[in-house]
Amino acid sequence: MITSFEGLKKNTPLVHNITNYVTVNDVANMILAAGGAPLMADAIEEVEDIVSISSALYINVGTLNARTVESMVLAGKKANELGLPVVLDPVGVGASKLRNEAVEKLIETVTFSVIKGNISEIKAMVTNAKNAGGVDVQAEDIVTDGNLEETTAFLKGVAQSMKCVIVATGAIDIVTDGQTTAFVRNGDAMMSRITGTGCMLGSVIATYCGSDKERILEGTVTALVVMGLAGQYAADKTERLGEGIGSFRAYLLDAMSDMSIEQLEEGALVEIQE
Amino acid sequence: MITSFEGLKKNTPLVHNITNYVTVNDVANMILAAGGAPLMADAIEEVEDIVSISSALYINVGTLNARTVESMVLAGKKANELGLPVVLDPVGVGASKLRNEAVEKLIETVTFSVIKGNISEIKAMVTNAKNAGGVDVQAEDIVTDGNLEETTAFLKGVAQSMKCVIVATGAIDIVTDGQTTAFVRNGDAMMSRITGTGCMLGSVIATYCGSDKERILEGTVTALVVMGLAGQYAADKTERLGEGIGSFRAYLLDAMSDMSIEQLEEGALVEIQE
Amino acid sequence: MITSFEGLKKNTPLVHNITNYVTVNDVANMILAAGGAPLMADAIEEVEDIVSISSALYINVGTLNARTVESMVLAGKKANELGLPVVLDPVGVGASKLRNEAVEKLIETVTFSVIKGNISEIKAMVTNAKNAGGVDVQAEDIVTDGNLEETTAFLKGVAQSMKCVIVATGAIDIVTDGQTTAFVRNGDAMMSRITGTGCMLGSVIATYCGSDKERILEGTVTALVVMGLAGQYAADKTERLGEGIGSFRAYLLDAMSDMSIEQLEEGALVEIQE
Repeated sequence: MITSFEGLKKNTPLVHNITNYVTVNDVANMILAAGGAPLMADAIEEVEDIVSISSALYINVGTLNARTVESMVLAGKKANELGLPVVLDPVGVGASKLRNEAVEKLIETVTFSVIKGNISEIKAMVTNAKNAGGVDVQAEDIVTDGNLEETTAFLKGVAQSMKCVIVATGAIDIVTDGQTTAFVRNGDAMMSRITGTGCMLGSVIATYCGSDKERILEGTVTALVVMGLAGQYAADKTERLGEGIGSFRAYLLDAMSDMSIEQLEEGALVEIQE
Repeated sequence: MITSFEGLKKNTPLVHNITNYVTVNDVANMILAAGGAPLMADAIEEVEDIVSISSALYINVGTLNARTVESMVLAGKKANELGLPVVLDPVGVGASKLRNEAVEKLIETVTFSVIKGNISEIKAMVTNAKNAGGVDVQAEDIVTDGNLEETTAFLKGVAQSMKCVIVATGAIDIVTDGQTTAFVRNGDAMMSRITGTGCMLGSVIATYCGSDKERILEGTVTALVVMGLAGQYAADKTERLGEGIGSFRAYLLDAMSDMSIEQLEEGALVEIQE
Repeated sequence: MITSFEGLKKNTPLVHNITNYVTVNDVANMILAAGGAPLMADAIEEVEDIVSISSALYINVGTLNARTVESMVLAGKKANELGLPVVLDPVGVGASKLRNEAVEKLIETVTFSVIKGNISEIKAMVTNAKNAGGVDVQAEDIVTDGNLEETTAFLKGVAQSMKCVIVATGAIDIVTDGQTTAFVRNGDAMMSRITGTGCMLGSVIATYCGSDKERILEGTVTALVVMGLAGQYAADKTERLGEGIGSFRAYLLDAMSDMSIEQLEEGALVEIQE
């Protein structure tokens, strides 16, 4: 399930990102750290040209507006036409009517390979539930060992009806294509103390999917493991040196750019359920 | 005057930011480091929805344009309607007609809890003076012990006529609601050697105000002290290790995220004048 | 050729940047580290006002759109009118019709002091060649000692016909005004492993040009040397400490902000060809 790591190191997928301006620099650097090449372009007049030279498309609605939503739709359709993987990050869906309508429009017009969000976002996306947590998970939604079975059943249903891989992130990340489900327990709580780890993860998923579009589920799981492991290494170092979130942010990129296959094989905490 | 610190640690105010794209990542991370939760959203179609789930609104005109100014007005009005604190950072006002008109429109249509700028910006805001320093203070405006009394009288007048807390930042930060004035001497010159410390401060003020909207003056003073202290710690470490502004930027976030009540009580340099 | 360094330290040129939102924070901090003052503003209604208080203009088309292209043209014309140096970074030209048309329009309507790109971008700019590398150089274009003479002749021709200084970056940076050519061999491969080093370089060129508009070629060469040296120092430290690209990014700013004339004189790898 984590066999995509070495494949990525052999090519350098160009990943087209239409993403928010808050964490875009970390997204670009994280794609580079993971082994891809980032390209950010959101003008309506050029997104189709840019998709055409790319290996994958990452759409993140973090700071969407009327202009960029149109670009997302155009880019997504073009990527579908060309058979490229498209990853959706419905950041903060449920927090505003605009986000709900934009995500609804994207889902109706574009076929996604992977949709990734926290569990509140996934619920808001499919049930139109209000999401008062903004871009964060709501307390009552948090996935625990206690509600894991129920949550998994819900996510498998979503994956089946939407015909794509669904990722719900949290202390336990759940990845499912509706048949096979992976539970990833890598990561560290410190990752939620900086902005952008979710966006970075989304773009790393797109990078892996762009590296091998025939292995979407495997690439997604690998992305979750390497990102989670990078978080663990960075948190360990930050705590050992008595530093805070500024240093953690740098160490997270360090850990991703220095990741080895040995670290991955030793550290992966993945459980598969067929 | 710095009693707001522990209150903030007990809740996690969601702060809605309409801010510039230059320092937005540092703003988000600084809100997290201070103990809040950041949310960035500037689309006209959604700012009212986002304000409705937030505890405070931070408006920063750093890279304003016609579209975002409209969003600022809408968001500000909605925040007023809901009784949320609104903080204005009139970055670079006086440097262009657009900035002057935007700030004028904001002041006319929105009631602000706090307006924070360097002294050149505060002057430009109320006198329509030209500000050739761009986003930096002009040399002739710099607050010193020599002109402190005169500057304070001016700022008290502004606070009284605008009915809000006015903050003029500099080596000596002056905070006044028109009656009570606080002089804060925390901070380090190195803070002006990176971009964004002013924006980060503005968002931390909004975070404290969002944590306790009944104590706007106290929250603002506390924000100035914690931000200044974080700057002092970060500068000390940077100089001790012989590093430069890249490391300083990370250490500033470290220091904020690791700040303790003991550091605050020991390090606060605040003088109150009733 | 690198005599511009101390001049810059004596003034603090205000540099107006219309640049992409991906690396804009690093650009602002790098201008500060180099000794300038950054100002970012892209609203059509204000760019002329902002140019009027600035010493140089940096235009980077990284995340252009219809609105910002118009601002670039307006700002460029105003800078020309005022006799300010204007630096163009045609990021990713050749990758989309929009970029080609925008760059063509800029070249037709604005007189540039310096145009800087990787060799694929320079070729795409003058020949309308397709650039499938996105924002990166294409493998077949890479400048080596083998094709250096031919590439130099091509670039001199471009500089002569465009009447400006042309910079083609790579392992060997080539700078020419059509008569005098400088080859700069400073820098480190690690600089291409983070996003934005090209943008930062472009803005540092603008900073040097803004510091002394009579010495555009010298300022450009000095910018290339200090940026390259900063990259070498940062890469050395990163490797020595076993860190990765997150730390490298911070060290790059550290090295620039701590640069001394002694380091520059000792480390400059510049060859001049008249």
